[in-house]
Amino acid sequence: MAQVSEFTQTLQGTMVSSPIESTPMAEPIAGESDRPSAVFLVLDSPDPPAPWHELTDSVRHSLLSHAKKFGSFSKCISSASYALFPVLRWGRNYDLKMFRSDLLAGLTLASLGIPQSIGYANLAKLDPQYGLYTSVVPPLIYAVMGTSREIAIGPVAVVSLLISSMIQKVVDPALDPITYRKMIFTATFFAGIFQTSFGLFRLGFVVDFLSHAAIVGFMAGAAIVIGLQQLKGLLGIDHFTNKTDVVSVIKAVWIAVHQPMHPGNFLIGCSFLIFILITRFLGRRNRKFFWLPAIAPLLSVTLSTLLVFVTRADEHGVKTIRHVKGGLNPSSAKQLQFSGPLLGNSAKIGLISAVIALAEAIAVGRSFATIKGYQLDGNKEMIAMGCMNIAGSLSSCYVATGSFSRTAVNFSAGCKTTVSNIVMALTVFIALQLLTKLLYYTPVTILASIILSALPGLIDFREAYNIWEVDKMDFLASAGAFFGVLFGSVEIGLSVAVIISFSRIILNSIWPRIEILGRIQGTDIFCSIRQYPVANRTPGLLITRINSCFLCFINANFIKERILSWATEEKDALENAKERTRSVIIDMSNVMNIDTSGLEAIEEVHKKLASDEIQLAIVNPGWQVVHKMRKARLVDRIGRAWIFLTVAQAMEACLALKKENGHLC
Amino acid sequence: MAQVSEFTQTLQGTMVSSPIESTPMAEPIAGESDRPSAVFLVLDSPDPPAPWHELTDSVRHSLLSHAKKFGSFSKCISSASYALFPVLRWGRNYDLKMFRSDLLAGLTLASLGIPQSIGYANLAKLDPQYGLYTSVVPPLIYAVMGTSREIAIGPVAVVSLLISSMIQKVVDPALDPITYRKMIFTATFFAGIFQTSFGLFRLGFVVDFLSHAAIVGFMAGAAIVIGLQQLKGLLGIDHFTNKTDVVSVIKAVWIAVHQPMHPGNFLIGCSFLIFILITRFLGRRNRKFFWLPAIAPLLSVTLSTLLVFVTRADEHGVKTIRHVKGGLNPSSAKQLQFSGPLLGNSAKIGLISAVIALAEAIAVGRSFATIKGYQLDGNKEMIAMGCMNIAGSLSSCYVATGSFSRTAVNFSAGCKTTVSNIVMALTVFIALQLLTKLLYYTPVTILASIILSALPGLIDFREAYNIWEVDKMDFLASAGAFFGVLFGSVEIGLSVAVIISFSRIILNSIWPRIEILGRIQGTDIFCSIRQYPVANRTPGLLITRINSCFLCFINANFIKERILSWATEEKDALENAKERTRSVIIDMSNVMNIDTSGLEAIEEVHKKLASDEIQLAIVNPGWQVVHKMRKARLVDRIGRAWIFLTVAQAMEACLALKKENGHLC
Repeated sequence: MAQVSEFTQTLQGTMVSSPIESTPMAEPIAGESDRPSAVFLVLDSPDPPAPWHELTDSVRHSLLSHAKKFGSFSKCISSASYALFPVLRWGRNYDLKMFRSDLLAGLTLASLGIPQSIGYANLAKLDPQYGLYTSVVPPLIYAVMGTSREIAIGPVAVVSLLISSMIQKVVDPALDPITYRKMIFTATFFAGIFQTSFGLFRLGFVVDFLSHAAIVGFMAGAAIVIGLQQLKGLLGIDHFTNKTDVVSVIKAVWIAVHQPMHPGNFLIGCSFLIFILITRFLGRRNRKFFWLPAIAPLLSVTLSTLLVFVTRADEHGVKTIRHVKGGLNPSSAKQLQFSGPLLGNSAKIGLISAVIALAEAIAVGRSFATIKGYQLDGNKEMIAMGCMNIAGSLSSCYVATGSFSRTAVNFSAGCKTTVSNIVMALTVFIALQLLTKLLYYTPVTILASIILSALPGLIDFREAYNIWEVDKMDFLASAGAFFGVLFGSVEIGLSVAVIISFSRIILNSIWPRIEILGRIQGTDIFCSIRQYPVANRTPGLLITRINSCFLCFINANFIKERILSWATEEKDALENAKERTRSVIIDMSNVMNIDTSGLEAIEEVHKKLASDEIQLAIVNPGWQVVHKMRKARLVDRIGRAWIFLTVAQAMEACLALKKENGHLC
Repeated sequence: MAQVSEFTQTLQGTMVSSPIESTPMAEPIAGESDRPSAVFLVLDSPDPPAPWHELTDSVRHSLLSHAKKFGSFSKCISSASYALFPVLRWGRNYDLKMFRSDLLAGLTLASLGIPQSIGYANLAKLDPQYGLYTSVVPPLIYAVMGTSREIAIGPVAVVSLLISSMIQKVVDPALDPITYRKMIFTATFFAGIFQTSFGLFRLGFVVDFLSHAAIVGFMAGAAIVIGLQQLKGLLGIDHFTNKTDVVSVIKAVWIAVHQPMHPGNFLIGCSFLIFILITRFLGRRNRKFFWLPAIAPLLSVTLSTLLVFVTRADEHGVKTIRHVKGGLNPSSAKQLQFSGPLLGNSAKIGLISAVIALAEAIAVGRSFATIKGYQLDGNKEMIAMGCMNIAGSLSSCYVATGSFSRTAVNFSAGCKTTVSNIVMALTVFIALQLLTKLLYYTPVTILASIILSALPGLIDFREAYNIWEVDKMDFLASAGAFFGVLFGSVEIGLSVAVIISFSRIILNSIWPRIEILGRIQGTDIFCSIRQYPVANRTPGLLITRINSCFLCFINANFIKERILSWATEEKDALENAKERTRSVIIDMSNVMNIDTSGLEAIEEVHKKLASDEIQLAIVNPGWQVVHKMRKARLVDRIGRAWIFLTVAQAMEACLALKKENGHLC
């Protein structure tokens, strides 16, 4: 290779007739001093910052912005506390009228939240009280740290499914519930740590790794998987599969159905499911009845419990919750395990739950913030979520986040601030103190109905159709996540979505796009002749634009060959015609970066065109590109006079050159 | 999620004061009919072709281009044969003068090729004759099909190392030479099939997967590894490691050095290595002696063989080649194995060798084509290489390709066409028939010296320095490949290079770039105020440009938040000043594609700005982007009148709006 390049260099002078230096055509048509000053700007621009400077600058900026703004230490502290605890800001203007709204919203929220929490704890394979615990501590922490006013915090279906499906691969909750619980708390702790650090280091983009389309598909798949899991409760099945994919679950149900069953479970579950769905329908029909679907779950729990108590159905095969431990959240600090073989797994599960929980919370928070017309601070949200999960992991909670269904109820109930979360948490706390004994006769099947009734909210057909309409590739990511969750596992679904999304980015970057530009009559506007059929080409002039932001090893050769074939194709076709291509203008405004292969390609285009006596002009290369072209001495080889800021300037120079050559001939 | 979006939709009318419809500011300042016709072009452009249409079009185009050009079947056949066999084209003008040059070049080539082929066969752990076989059939096939005039075909060092290092992981050549050979031929066959299909389906970009920088690093690493392997021959070591990494090899040498050795091997090897290096030095100093380094290896072989024969050194520990089977290439068709457990491995090894062989051949071919000022047709080259390797695999050859060192010699010797390859092949053929017996006393150590002397050509310090100078990230890929080969294995080195190169593409695409634009005084040119400090911002107007060609889930949120914070930051700073930001112009000329997350981000920017009474104008979105914005009905929501073709038009409209608002106040 060294030999080759040596040959290339030593022989260039002798073997190649180098028209760059020898023929008059390569000389700039006007002396550099004659050109308008704007033209030289391309080459006069300062050096761009190095990539790592940009990175460190952005980190430093984000970390020090507050300190800079306020100077003194005490002010810095106060501004930091204002930033961390938004309650300090809005708390001052809080009044009785707002409290009345929040109280109503909080109570509505609690009536929906209590049965849901118990159901989700069941989904997470934990005892019912852990769901309730998770509805006490995290909402209180979020209330003072969060920036969203509508989000309702607590356990949610998808995260419950995610965490149980991942942990039960390592520890069986039926055989070893203590280790299982320890691992849940440890994973929750890690999730909190990850979320907090995402916020502190402004790594919000981690959440963006899952595209909107992928989340739509993932949520829909997860909803179906969760629904299938509820068949266990609904049918009162004892032995169920630990796997979550459709095939295993249907197989397990098939086996269970063919064994003796107690129809009571199914009857109670289905009738209350229908009741809840009817109330939801009524609530949607008439806005005045918004509270009906919100209290329907609590009503169902109460009625079904009474029913079982009166008929003593629990003695005839209807499964009931039985003992729920009451009282305040016990400390779980001693249950966190930072050693042993499960540590790596806990951290991994924590990371995945952290990302999914954030994705759900931020998606729901943003939707409602947009409706109310305020901006959600993603980084503060992440810190708040992280802190509440760290605190949760120390007080027997598992991963909490913003719930789709409860947030919508909170919003409809007219919440004004996060005080509604405090009201809810206190209500749940009171329920934990006083009412857990009443759950003794609550049938398990009712929890399944409550979860099932919340699932349709996770499946967004309209959005899926929109995605299909607008962007087929995005739909592919969506479908990948959906079928991955359905037929593989939660992790497979997520991986498929991430892989499809990233392959798309790569394909988009490497798909070499190059277009011929034409001028719109009577203007200095140049655009693609395919996109704008009104644009006209100028005879003897090939204007191309590279539509790729990174001219690199993967597309440079294609682009080089395309430019050369366009330039020479016309040369062949018009061999004898007067108007063969005499100049090629490459518009590089879209090229933001280039690598050595790209530089080489440009150089080869230049050499080949020069040997065919075609003039090359470069227009407006990106900042990094100009810099690298200067460093690689490509600017000097092409000629400083042939690098322009606009296509119009380049065209003018090329036409003047043509005229001059015409005179010479 | 569905709930949320329902809420969003049902509540928008009531909750949000929607200034888009209600305030006068969002109305276009001039009626649509008043705007110059050029402005509407953005929205009038036809639908872009779907991505798969573009793909199928390009394949159809490339496959049918010849058929289309020539119409009738017979003409199609003749044009196809012209395309496949370039010899039909240049053969007609071939004359005696050209043949004289080619004859000389071919003989020089053979004198270098014979010893090199034997050495490389040794490196590939094959008997010497297989190297010679590989210098007979493939060059003959290439001569009639290839488009490069200088390339010298035959076995090369890197591919020999690659294929032996990969196959000996599966089959030990010392224990089971027959299976090893079968696998070599099968892998060669697969390599040929892959290369031909790359060419037929125009998959030339597969070769581009290895960036220029990665190849520089890989070649240098491979050269050092090959050099270390030669220590076995040079020191006359019997038991050597099968691993190729530096650590294992040095350990093996260390052990061997401490055992009784015969210094004869080392003495002969070193002295002839010095001899060859001196001739190379002389050849470079004076162009007239170019033949000296070319024949030095053959001279060394002859002299050393004579030396051993005369002194009977082989009886005193100097290892000699001994029996080399003479005669024409035997058929190896029956040795190809298309069943059994090794098939997958053979295919994989074939694929990797195919890519590396093509990368080397095309790199060397392009270098010399550029010097001579003609264009290499990558796809035809790949078909030619593929066919010669398929033919080779049927006639006891292993993977052949274009050699760096021999191509340079061929070029210096003044070759005119591929006839020099034919001359070389015939010479090697004659040698195989007549001279193999003379190799009986040739010391093995001389082969090591010949390979060692060819290695410096693979290490390109100057290019590595250039890469470091121009592009630090490219250098990282280079260094990754280098150290990967050196301390891992050939495959690890390649993987590292590919991974680094691709991560770079991803990083480049997702790194969200957005800039504030300013106007260059007295022109309609708008450019980045960081890159062009002379550009001025217009008060009350924020002009931004998205410098990313794919606005997608990974950068959309960042870009959205950046635009909003710029717009509102100034609003805060200038709360009481007259000149708060009244309009935001987003220049989207660089955005070639968008996904649903990107569309959502644009829509959210629009909503938020509208609620702050700031007008949004979009400038020149890419073809796909306009199309998707239309489909997502974003065009209507932003307003058809606020999408422009140039920044200047958008600015005019915004300034007119401001003036009108001023009048209204």
